[in-house]
Amino acid sequence: MDHPEGSIGVTKIKATNITWHEGHVGRQEREQLLNQKGALLWMTGLSGSGKSTIAYTLEHALVQRGHLAYVLDGDNIRHGLNKNLGFSAEDRQENIRRIGEVGKLYVDTGIITITAFISPYRADRAVARETIGEGNFFEVFCDTPLDVCEERDPKGLYKKARAGEIKGFTGIDDPYEAPEKPEVVIDTSKLSPQDAAVALIEILEKNGKIPAVSE
Amino acid sequence: MDHPEGSIGVTKIKATNITWHEGHVGRQEREQLLNQKGALLWMTGLSGSGKSTIAYTLEHALVQRGHLAYVLDGDNIRHGLNKNLGFSAEDRQENIRRIGEVGKLYVDTGIITITAFISPYRADRAVARETIGEGNFFEVFCDTPLDVCEERDPKGLYKKARAGEIKGFTGIDDPYEAPEKPEVVIDTSKLSPQDAAVALIEILEKNGKIPAVSE
Repeated sequence: MDHPEGSIGVTKIKATNITWHEGHVGRQEREQLLNQKGALLWMTGLSGSGKSTIAYTLEHALVQRGHLAYVLDGDNIRHGLNKNLGFSAEDRQENIRRIGEVGKLYVDTGIITITAFISPYRADRAVARETIGEGNFFEVFCDTPLDVCEERDPKGLYKKARAGEIKGFTGIDDPYEAPEKPEVVIDTSKLSPQDAAVALIEILEKNGKIPAVSE
Repeated sequence: MDHPEGSIGVTKIKATNITWHEGHVGRQEREQLLNQKGALLWMTGLSGSGKSTIAYTLEHALVQRGHLAYVLDGDNIRHGLNKNLGFSAEDRQENIRRIGEVGKLYVDTGIITITAFISPYRADRAVARETIGEGNFFEVFCDTPLDVCEERDPKGLYKKARAGEIKGFTGIDDPYEAPEKPEVVIDTSKLSPQDAAVALIEILEKNGKIPAVSE
């Protein structure tokens, strides 16, 4: 049978009248279907720096605009794929490696993917960038001052770390290695999650990941 | 600001005029956007039994109908997420566990997901079913006779296994535990990949995962 060019968007084909294809569906065909391009926004920063809040605010705004977005964070990764990993140096590295590999699959699927993990080590984030590939990877540094994060302390973790109940807590007794060349820097003590999401949407538009909204 | 019910499909909103939401985007909202429901078709069977061929044929047919489908197989998993796993009993189990967890994320994202792995052990597939959840998980047994698979030998692996160059090869010197209650059984010595894909599409329709195509 013939395969008319650009027939990907066709939705009304009888099962008995399918045009069969050789080979694999490419990323581009899925992106055409979704009217967006796969991208990964890698949020990094201290606990309480606003990563998850911005991630979920952005996800909502994108879905509202008709785009498929998905957040990978501790809630769905640490209790699932990475539930067999602890917090040793080796396990932290493997944690980030797996997130990068899942991110790669998501980007290939055409999804605007947002990861929200402290991801304190430069070397691990470099592996993620390498895995995802330049042009697909946007490092978003939530550069909120430690004292602001500690004041917020949404999970009570800083208090426990200061009391010595948690060891190796990032920012207290384990280092946070700030990105040297992040694509975006956000200080959530100065910018609301909504304004941060707007800024990230503009970056997605400028990079051709989603169509710009016309005036 | 107000949030009108069912505004997910809205695509033309100025970034400066976004309606902000509390909480997370739910699976249902993404499914509404995609006009489909997340599902996982778990292909299982001997090497050469037709898993990948059917998976890619089905993916093409679904994308052509305007649905977002994605295949997870050895090509994108074994060289990526699971590249640090070998073929010991423990590693095989972890291989399938991770695929199940990624599948769970994909189903939550609203994607028609198709996995194509030999996945020879009943216990491992039971873990995947449990992870994905009933109603989302469709075990598709490619029940092609061993002699047909060995005759095809697309990767020359049976020849090597018979020559003793590969140890622990499923069907030769390692067991394949056939599913006891698979949702679908396909014998590709009798059914073409296209007919198998049509059958699977009908199953997705009947289970409300994709809209039935009208006459």
